[in-house]
Amino acid sequence: MGLLFKNEGHVVFKPAKDVDLTPASSELYLRANVKAPRMAGFLVKVFAWFLESRIFGTLLLFILKRDNLIHKLVTNAELEEPPVYVPLHPLDDKEEQDVKQVGSDLSPPELVQQAIECLPVSLEKTSTGSNFSFRHWTILDYSRAYTSGEITPRTVAEHLIAAIHESSTPPLQMSFFINYKAEDILKQATESTLRYEQGVPISALDGIPIAIKDEIDCLPYPTTGGTKWLHNLRPCTDDACCVKCLRLCGAVLVGKTNMHELGAGTSGINPHYGATRNPYSRSKISGGSSSGSAAVVASGLCPVALGVDGGGSVRMPAALCGVVGLKPTFGRVPHSGYAAISCQLPPRQLSVSPKVNFPLLNSTKPISSIKLAKYGEWFNDCSDDIRECCSNALERLQKQYGWKTVEVTIPEIEMMRLAHYVTIGSECSTSLSSFLEKLDFEELGWDARVALAVYGAFSGKEYIKAQKIRNRQMQFHMNLFTQADVIVSPTIGVTAYTILDDALNTGELDYINGAALVRYSIAGNFLGLPAVTVPVGYDKSGLPIGLQLIGKPWSEATLIHIAFAMQDLYVSEYRKPEVYYDLLNKNSVF
Amino acid sequence: MGLLFKNEGHVVFKPAKDVDLTPASSELYLRANVKAPRMAGFLVKVFAWFLESRIFGTLLLFILKRDNLIHKLVTNAELEEPPVYVPLHPLDDKEEQDVKQVGSDLSPPELVQQAIECLPVSLEKTSTGSNFSFRHWTILDYSRAYTSGEITPRTVAEHLIAAIHESSTPPLQMSFFINYKAEDILKQATESTLRYEQGVPISALDGIPIAIKDEIDCLPYPTTGGTKWLHNLRPCTDDACCVKCLRLCGAVLVGKTNMHELGAGTSGINPHYGATRNPYSRSKISGGSSSGSAAVVASGLCPVALGVDGGGSVRMPAALCGVVGLKPTFGRVPHSGYAAISCQLPPRQLSVSPKVNFPLLNSTKPISSIKLAKYGEWFNDCSDDIRECCSNALERLQKQYGWKTVEVTIPEIEMMRLAHYVTIGSECSTSLSSFLEKLDFEELGWDARVALAVYGAFSGKEYIKAQKIRNRQMQFHMNLFTQADVIVSPTIGVTAYTILDDALNTGELDYINGAALVRYSIAGNFLGLPAVTVPVGYDKSGLPIGLQLIGKPWSEATLIHIAFAMQDLYVSEYRKPEVYYDLLNKNSVF
Repeated sequence: MGLLFKNEGHVVFKPAKDVDLTPASSELYLRANVKAPRMAGFLVKVFAWFLESRIFGTLLLFILKRDNLIHKLVTNAELEEPPVYVPLHPLDDKEEQDVKQVGSDLSPPELVQQAIECLPVSLEKTSTGSNFSFRHWTILDYSRAYTSGEITPRTVAEHLIAAIHESSTPPLQMSFFINYKAEDILKQATESTLRYEQGVPISALDGIPIAIKDEIDCLPYPTTGGTKWLHNLRPCTDDACCVKCLRLCGAVLVGKTNMHELGAGTSGINPHYGATRNPYSRSKISGGSSSGSAAVVASGLCPVALGVDGGGSVRMPAALCGVVGLKPTFGRVPHSGYAAISCQLPPRQLSVSPKVNFPLLNSTKPISSIKLAKYGEWFNDCSDDIRECCSNALERLQKQYGWKTVEVTIPEIEMMRLAHYVTIGSECSTSLSSFLEKLDFEELGWDARVALAVYGAFSGKEYIKAQKIRNRQMQFHMNLFTQADVIVSPTIGVTAYTILDDALNTGELDYINGAALVRYSIAGNFLGLPAVTVPVGYDKSGLPIGLQLIGKPWSEATLIHIAFAMQDLYVSEYRKPEVYYDLLNKNSVF
Repeated sequence: MGLLFKNEGHVVFKPAKDVDLTPASSELYLRANVKAPRMAGFLVKVFAWFLESRIFGTLLLFILKRDNLIHKLVTNAELEEPPVYVPLHPLDDKEEQDVKQVGSDLSPPELVQQAIECLPVSLEKTSTGSNFSFRHWTILDYSRAYTSGEITPRTVAEHLIAAIHESSTPPLQMSFFINYKAEDILKQATESTLRYEQGVPISALDGIPIAIKDEIDCLPYPTTGGTKWLHNLRPCTDDACCVKCLRLCGAVLVGKTNMHELGAGTSGINPHYGATRNPYSRSKISGGSSSGSAAVVASGLCPVALGVDGGGSVRMPAALCGVVGLKPTFGRVPHSGYAAISCQLPPRQLSVSPKVNFPLLNSTKPISSIKLAKYGEWFNDCSDDIRECCSNALERLQKQYGWKTVEVTIPEIEMMRLAHYVTIGSECSTSLSSFLEKLDFEELGWDARVALAVYGAFSGKEYIKAQKIRNRQMQFHMNLFTQADVIVSPTIGVTAYTILDDALNTGELDYINGAALVRYSIAGNFLGLPAVTVPVGYDKSGLPIGLQLIGKPWSEATLIHIAFAMQDLYVSEYRKPEVYYDLLNKNSVF
């Protein structure tokens, strides 16, 4: 096997090229060995105090790193691969095969038009068919309603403002938004309405309400990153590149969504702006860090929202809230205008939507020829409900479309999770350092303080070792993609869990649930691969479950193609969330 | 100016593109602010004990990093450039202009033949002229003597073995070599002699004695890296790539030269294999870490030797010992077969020779058109003798060849030194970690223990910040190279200093002299630039002084072209070292 446990503190990896990736491989699947009890309330405070003291903190961090196998699997790992610092794939692979390329010189509205023309016929069918009890409205639904004059962007905006208000106040208090300005929304919507009235909408996005994660710059709002201070030290002076595009297309930018403080957690429990609640069950988490973006889409407030995915931060909440989440290839989306929380794993624009809305490239690959790689041990390392649901989904897809599943072994997944943690921690610590210098730590939430203490605890050696692990994984995955088009897995290892009261003010530390949530997300970020999550069912309590597809670099077209096919199969079974707003209903009253 | 000292602990850098590089720049030249007294003997031991203890060590390292401005200039620096992890320059720049390209499909002996044909005519002149009192023999001198039958490789080898023996034993005890095998030398020399007798020498390198730094694999020797243990944990099983080439050309590989333990120092004082003594004055250091390679060339034992330059480790000892030292562009020489002590600043093959021997590419650029960039503040930050000598040299070169000097400002040089230290420290710590795991620390020298403790003390954040500083410097230097062909500076800030008795067994910590030695070396390594040092005089005690030229990426041909011209000017003034062996003298008796 790839790793030989030589002694307690030391692992020797055999060269990546010699590792067996077949199902017959002797590679051990190592379950996450998280040694940290759940903490919230007073306990988190004490823990943070200890961690921040120079002497006790040093010892405590040493123990934490040792007990969580970081010393064994990263720090002291013996591996020969040189470090790879950026998950960049050669540019000449950028043109995906079997894909209609869209001219790169098109304006954003022209791109949207092209994208609409690329939409598969199936979408027509599901849009107008009636074989479903509930479905979220899509961008196209809005666009058609506007064009037919059935409803105006202004009316939708009015509904929206009322719905945000209702969802934000007792008894719901969903904490979807950090900031929204009714006036600004109405102004944009009125302009859009005028364009429709004059018969000159800019694009299919004209008048579409889109929410933006509060880590992405979007005027006229400050960018808080989920904190009470970041916007003071880093003023927002312009739209981020992706926001600019949306604005150019006529979209109505409806405000900044809630997020886990600094993106440094997966629960979406924010002590400053409230715990974002899951539209499918308001006692449950929405996940994070793009909690609000996933939740507003699930609750019907927007047909699409932007998030940022540095370690599953779009895909996890999307799956937990029962919507589609897409993370593009590293380098696909320019990342200017983000509250830079990480540098090598740069924040990435990410659409969360209830339906696949945006195939910018249209795959012409025959849908029946898709090959899916599945690593059984990993696929099954989740709750019973998820395992059953995702296995069924896979079986159904194979039957319906004739897709083949190739059994494989993906080695060293737990090492990759730890290496990614070391990497994103060190990079986050670097990006924030100049701000933290000026900060009164009292302004930080307690769980963020713990996260920052841990992030700053990694050595240069550990960072470099983590990059060597990245090299191995890039080799493994490139090899796997010679055998299959995509890797298939559940998106999350547990469904949305309960928000406990003791966590509301301090945040909570729940590394066991955290590790189960990120279990399937890491390759997308650490290796820069595109990935998409599509809802495929519900657990026994009715909480959503997602199936994830990880693609080769630059294979978004194929991923979206597959996601559409999956959605077609499930559209008749989607359930209405507990908290849901039907904004296209002319007579909506909140 | 580029940096604004906002407060005691915090520096804000303005964007690299906005920094003024003209002589009128308001950029401050920051002198190295080394706060660490010289330590040797018992003091080093106590210091190492403290550093290695978890609690005291943590505090002590914090204080050291703070007092030496690492916190201020690296850890807490606020700079917007993204990190650049590898000093790689685009490949399309690889073809130097005005250079006769040598076919890349040639065999090593064919390459040598091409190189000989590229030698400038001036070399002929100096080889046969008589306007000098002393000069070292070159490869060509050896080659001609062999071809004419004046002397045989076998006789030279016999002289060499006797000379090594004499230099290694009392009263001289120069500690040039860690390992040499008389039998193996004689065997190679006998084979070479036979080839000359049959009229079929392989190349101009046939029979040339070449010594190899003990960090580079060369059979039949172990590769100790200057330690007593590395070769046991990392057996040498093959020649390094560069050694293979030399062997293919018929060179006689004469053994492994002494070095600073693990390359982790600049003095060349090795507690296990002795302090390599300077051939110009045996009470002085030879510098390091390629101490033996520089010293054997200076003492006439070899016309050329291989070293490794990760932070000036060839150029510094070459300058201190009065010989030429060349460090090629990052990526020019394959680096397989090194005792990998660093990964991103990989060990690089480096020839140390008394004369420029190897222009593999012949520049056709008119020698009169050369433009040199000079940063006065930096150029003058050295001892009085060096300043005077290097200034005179520059003036003389301008007069003789019509070279132009452009005054410039190179900003943030001290920050670059610290960032390079953080980088090479972290990388060294990573490369050695699997060995250190298995090591009884008693086997390490005391100064190496201190170095390793410091190397391991850098955080992931500090490592990433250092890479951001690299980005800035790469921008600065690429800008400077639009104004000049090379950057000129002294090679070292102090000449060879005295080896004190208390340092012999423990090594010594002398960070003040260390910083003065590396002052001019960093850009070559951290930015991957080629550089060459040429002897241009002596201080008042008769110790050598070198002038350094730093070139654009892939500009070795120009550098060597310039180096030849400089040497032509100085060849009549070179002095004979105190310890010198004339191996080509048929009647040599030692």
